[in-house]
Amino acid sequence: MERLSIDITKCMSGLDEGTALTPNMLEQFAPQLEKARRAVLDAAGTGMLGWMDLPAQDPGPYLDFAAECADKYECLLIIGIGGSALGTTALATALLPFYYNELSPGERKGRPRLYVLDNVDPDETVALLGRLDLSRTLVNVISKSGTTGESMAGYLVLREQLRTLVGQAALNEHFVFTTDPVGGALRKIGAAMGAPMFDLPPDVGGRFSVLSAVGLLPAALTGMDVRGLLAGAQDMADWIAETKGWENPACKFAGVQFLEDTALGRCVSVMMPYSARLRDVADWYRQLWAESLGKEVDRQGRTVNVGPLPVKSLGVTDQHSQLQLYAEGPDDKVITFLGVGEFDKTVTIPTPGPEAEALAYLGGHTLGGLLWAEQKGTAWALAKRGRPSLTITLPRVEAYSVGALLYLLEMATAIAGGLYDVDAFDQPGVELSKQATYALMGRPGYEALASEIG
Amino acid sequence: MERLSIDITKCMSGLDEGTALTPNMLEQFAPQLEKARRAVLDAAGTGMLGWMDLPAQDPGPYLDFAAECADKYECLLIIGIGGSALGTTALATALLPFYYNELSPGERKGRPRLYVLDNVDPDETVALLGRLDLSRTLVNVISKSGTTGESMAGYLVLREQLRTLVGQAALNEHFVFTTDPVGGALRKIGAAMGAPMFDLPPDVGGRFSVLSAVGLLPAALTGMDVRGLLAGAQDMADWIAETKGWENPACKFAGVQFLEDTALGRCVSVMMPYSARLRDVADWYRQLWAESLGKEVDRQGRTVNVGPLPVKSLGVTDQHSQLQLYAEGPDDKVITFLGVGEFDKTVTIPTPGPEAEALAYLGGHTLGGLLWAEQKGTAWALAKRGRPSLTITLPRVEAYSVGALLYLLEMATAIAGGLYDVDAFDQPGVELSKQATYALMGRPGYEALASEIG
Repeated sequence: MERLSIDITKCMSGLDEGTALTPNMLEQFAPQLEKARRAVLDAAGTGMLGWMDLPAQDPGPYLDFAAECADKYECLLIIGIGGSALGTTALATALLPFYYNELSPGERKGRPRLYVLDNVDPDETVALLGRLDLSRTLVNVISKSGTTGESMAGYLVLREQLRTLVGQAALNEHFVFTTDPVGGALRKIGAAMGAPMFDLPPDVGGRFSVLSAVGLLPAALTGMDVRGLLAGAQDMADWIAETKGWENPACKFAGVQFLEDTALGRCVSVMMPYSARLRDVADWYRQLWAESLGKEVDRQGRTVNVGPLPVKSLGVTDQHSQLQLYAEGPDDKVITFLGVGEFDKTVTIPTPGPEAEALAYLGGHTLGGLLWAEQKGTAWALAKRGRPSLTITLPRVEAYSVGALLYLLEMATAIAGGLYDVDAFDQPGVELSKQATYALMGRPGYEALASEIG
Repeated sequence: MERLSIDITKCMSGLDEGTALTPNMLEQFAPQLEKARRAVLDAAGTGMLGWMDLPAQDPGPYLDFAAECADKYECLLIIGIGGSALGTTALATALLPFYYNELSPGERKGRPRLYVLDNVDPDETVALLGRLDLSRTLVNVISKSGTTGESMAGYLVLREQLRTLVGQAALNEHFVFTTDPVGGALRKIGAAMGAPMFDLPPDVGGRFSVLSAVGLLPAALTGMDVRGLLAGAQDMADWIAETKGWENPACKFAGVQFLEDTALGRCVSVMMPYSARLRDVADWYRQLWAESLGKEVDRQGRTVNVGPLPVKSLGVTDQHSQLQLYAEGPDDKVITFLGVGEFDKTVTIPTPGPEAEALAYLGGHTLGGLLWAEQKGTAWALAKRGRPSLTITLPRVEAYSVGALLYLLEMATAIAGGLYDVDAFDQPGVELSKQATYALMGRPGYEALASEIG
């Protein structure tokens, strides 16, 4: 299979000295970059690096479970938040047909519609419940600890509805849990219910879990090419393991982003797919990059308050929303264009009539050609103003290339963690907000905090 | 009707001196703020301030057209991009039922499903065409000039498909155009076709056009409360006209954002709704704020390269994606929480069984109560770390409050333009990218540029 490519040449054309990366900068930085890559590879099998083992796993259990479920369910509801939802959403947008939930059962080949509940808005939740044929719904609750308040609230609501409808004894036909293999509240709940359970390995954090049961079980249930995803990820893993420094795709992405931020002051990392299918990959990346690198202290415990800001954008649409700022505003952004070599469909733009001469130049081109011209033209125009961009091009949007892309970005994040010298696998900054929520919800033990918040 | 509220107190509690707004700073800034407000109000009726007249307009023509269309169409397709699409999307998410397109015709009260084509991805476009019952589809093409390449490409594709299906003579039953009242390519096309047309006033820019035919015609066709939207906007306009300085809601928003950026170095403006209905208001705001304030030169022609970065976020979901960075990363962000006083639906969280004691604290609370606790807890936790936020609370999400919110943000943008001393109503920075696209598409007259791009 053809591999994706990364082009960083448009990071090397600033307007003034000190505004672009230079060959010399890259060369001087190469040893540090290689050291960061080496450190991640050498640490495989330790700490929170379990996601590095995922490409080589056997997807048989997911596929077997999906085969057992064939034609059994009209709806699949994922209850999860953050890393338990963003990966599935990214995969669904990239690999399921557009408007999937509006297709007929035949068009879906008997596979269930897919809903992701990743919020606790009551109006949205009621509307969602109204969409589900509950008697033919499978609910996949995903939480490592089983204590994620938002997801567990959703679980409790669904459990009650289902219990009323099908009875306690049949609940295990409607739930499947993805959680810690041993401990945690959800494991206990699943055991009590006698429901099927899949493991979220303890050494895989939520935002690195898309290639575990978290992402692959919903993928298998909706008929995505799970083996293709893993094969693409494995090929990327091999490529990263075999290639040093700036020739390495993960190093290239991480190194450029790091230097743009720390050496050139560009702290905003915009991910801008020129493909509707890849739009939610940008949202998944947003969590991966922000939560991994946004840290108060470095690995020596020094206060650093670092972290580039990942921004989700969409070509060509956001040219009519954000490009003005990218082109003329503060020079603090680096854009990553996500391009596609070949689309599935070809749509030729018809030639306009004489009443629309101004549009004659469009006639005979394809929509894909227009999209390509917009992407290339925008990258060129930004470079002309000294605004840097890099371009990742997927040959096609399919399971193999998407698996490769996701793994590339995971590895780049781990390497960037080394460059920033932060722990890329924790998230201590969300704890205070969780405790405040407990306090405001009247959880026993949080009375003092409740009165402090007032 | 109860008005929305804006609370800025959590911008006034920094960890160290110089990291928070102080009463003294606000007081010293009040004259400049009042001057900026006055300048906008005094300029009403001039330049590109036509959007200030929109709340008082008669929505009769939109409602009449919608009445004529009743039961006639199964699908409404909007073809537009940027300001021609984001407003409609924001209104639809806020005011139509969730999963609107999945509802039966009866549940939709005979009103059409709504699709917005705001990109040129060929795969997405083909999928969209597959969803439309073209013989019962009304296409609303929106472009001020009629030369927006992406929208016009979409128009040409749809025109060809419809011509094949219904014939040239019946095209005017399937198209309605929203464009410049006199000139431009789309006006000519509409006249040649004999299709109905609505005006996009010349003194209303795309990103300020949501309360013109651009947003209100789709709103009327899908049965939203158009009069309510305008009444809410008019009430906000009155409030802004009557109230000075820091008591003024638009001044409060614009002033805080400006001071946070220019006095305290917080250049990122995060809009974070705690309501699924308001999620796309944040996307609409993203264009409004970025394109209006992201400018290379000020009104004296000096190079300034200013512009805060608007970021769309979503509570509670993005607490599990972005909060880590907001809490621990660089202190360069100000969060605007968009809260809701009362939801339509009440969902009570059932009490968990003995197998899930850790979740007992959730039982008996409502989802709305949980959402409120998350929002309040997060604002408190951020403040505790010296990270500022402001909170806009809508009594309920309904046409009146949404109209008020949109108008508030438009006025705040105009006032902020004065504070930054930039032209908030142009977008010169996108021109070069457009020309590059023309060149790459082989448009006559752009040969030299094409060879420069290579």
